[in-house]
Amino acid sequence: MRMERLQGWMTRMCRHPVVSSSEVFQIFLTYKDEKDWKTGKRKAEKDETVGVMVFTTIEPEAADLDLVEVEQKCEQFNRFTKAMDDGVKEILTVGNEHWKRCTGPLPKEYQRIGKAFQNLSAVFNSSGYQGESTLTDAMTAAGKTYEEIAQMVAEQPKKDLHFVMETNNEYKGLLGCFPDTIGVHKAAIDKVKEADKLVATSKITPQDKVTMAKRVSTMSYALQAEMNHFHSNRIYDYNRVMQLYLEEQVKFYETIAAKLRQAHSQFTTM
Amino acid sequence: MRMERLQGWMTRMCRHPVVSSSEVFQIFLTYKDEKDWKTGKRKAEKDETVGVMVFTTIEPEAADLDLVEVEQKCEQFNRFTKAMDDGVKEILTVGNEHWKRCTGPLPKEYQRIGKAFQNLSAVFNSSGYQGESTLTDAMTAAGKTYEEIAQMVAEQPKKDLHFVMETNNEYKGLLGCFPDTIGVHKAAIDKVKEADKLVATSKITPQDKVTMAKRVSTMSYALQAEMNHFHSNRIYDYNRVMQLYLEEQVKFYETIAAKLRQAHSQFTTM
Repeated sequence: MRMERLQGWMTRMCRHPVVSSSEVFQIFLTYKDEKDWKTGKRKAEKDETVGVMVFTTIEPEAADLDLVEVEQKCEQFNRFTKAMDDGVKEILTVGNEHWKRCTGPLPKEYQRIGKAFQNLSAVFNSSGYQGESTLTDAMTAAGKTYEEIAQMVAEQPKKDLHFVMETNNEYKGLLGCFPDTIGVHKAAIDKVKEADKLVATSKITPQDKVTMAKRVSTMSYALQAEMNHFHSNRIYDYNRVMQLYLEEQVKFYETIAAKLRQAHSQFTTM
Repeated sequence: MRMERLQGWMTRMCRHPVVSSSEVFQIFLTYKDEKDWKTGKRKAEKDETVGVMVFTTIEPEAADLDLVEVEQKCEQFNRFTKAMDDGVKEILTVGNEHWKRCTGPLPKEYQRIGKAFQNLSAVFNSSGYQGESTLTDAMTAAGKTYEEIAQMVAEQPKKDLHFVMETNNEYKGLLGCFPDTIGVHKAAIDKVKEADKLVATSKITPQDKVTMAKRVSTMSYALQAEMNHFHSNRIYDYNRVMQLYLEEQVKFYETIAAKLRQAHSQFTTM
């Protein structure tokens, strides 16, 4: 599980266009000894373009956005991530319950059905009536089939639901980072909104206000880029995991049908 | 349900070699008016060969059984019917629970899974990101498929488990008659066991004792015939109902697999 999640995290980092090519990530991936690691770590610690300073390294190629547009985008992302957070949590809740049912009461019930058929079959076998085995052999086999189905049901979640849960857990984590990210942008927007007052009271120059607007536009472009990256990854991830889930579900139900068909074939048509 | 059970009872009566050809049963089947019915009823009421007197009408073609053999047979039938009664009741208990699960929590859970997929899909649709519909159309369809499965699960017991339950309910009723039948035989056996003492105290003649032994042998043959009839019907009935159950179960799982395969095919391979 830990290995699987580390792999998931690594894949995600490698897919990110900025993170994957960043020096500090490359060091993490390629360091050969303690010395390499310490040198890299020290260098990274001296990096001053951290936090919001990262925006100073970004130069959008398109025209500056106006404040209203920035605010709208920010609001849209906020709404989307919150709604997706709810949706993801709903899947996790429902999935957890389904997991519990599939590994607890449901296989127990199939097992009891299987046992009940086998028990009745054993009683029939004790009848002393001739020709009994034409029924009891098939009935015992049918009972065993339901016991096999019980085991299949219990083992299935690991084969399909697991991946739906892992993907949604990962996205729950990712979505948990957005309130902070969006908070930084909102704070910046609020600052620019104050600018008129600050200019009026000569606390900043009109040029400062223009610079502030430019900066918030840059932040908005960066957020847009991040969201685009997030959306494209999300579409890929959910497409993949839904396909995997459905594929395994099809196999599961087809295998059950085949087992039951085999059990059915053992009965004699009278 | 009442119609179905009446039909079941009628079929069973018609299958019985003695009942089916009995005058009173024929009257029940063929009377045309109140007058026919009353005449038949009056005639039946005058019939004196009821209860244990029915044995006077039976003349076994084989040699008399000795008391030990009669006792063994009686004991065997007793053991068998009690064991079968337990087995049938176990199936009814397990079947009832399975019925409740299939019509209650299980479809509710599939419905919730379906809704959760559809809800997340609706959130994705609100992203404003282009190319979203390649994922969301398929994901919504997958969600709807699980809602369809929910309905299938809820409706399935009527198509298969119902008949298993009806057959076992019918047998529970039949088995409930055996303790009395076997009781009559046991009482007769006990009477014959007392015969030596009764002869010794001259309460009956040695010839009476021979007659008693003959009568109990006849009763044992009758019980054997009844049990043979019961066994052959039981083998037929359980064979038929197990086949029907498995057939419908196969169809059920195959339909689910086909629905999920269809849902899977709507996703785009990326």
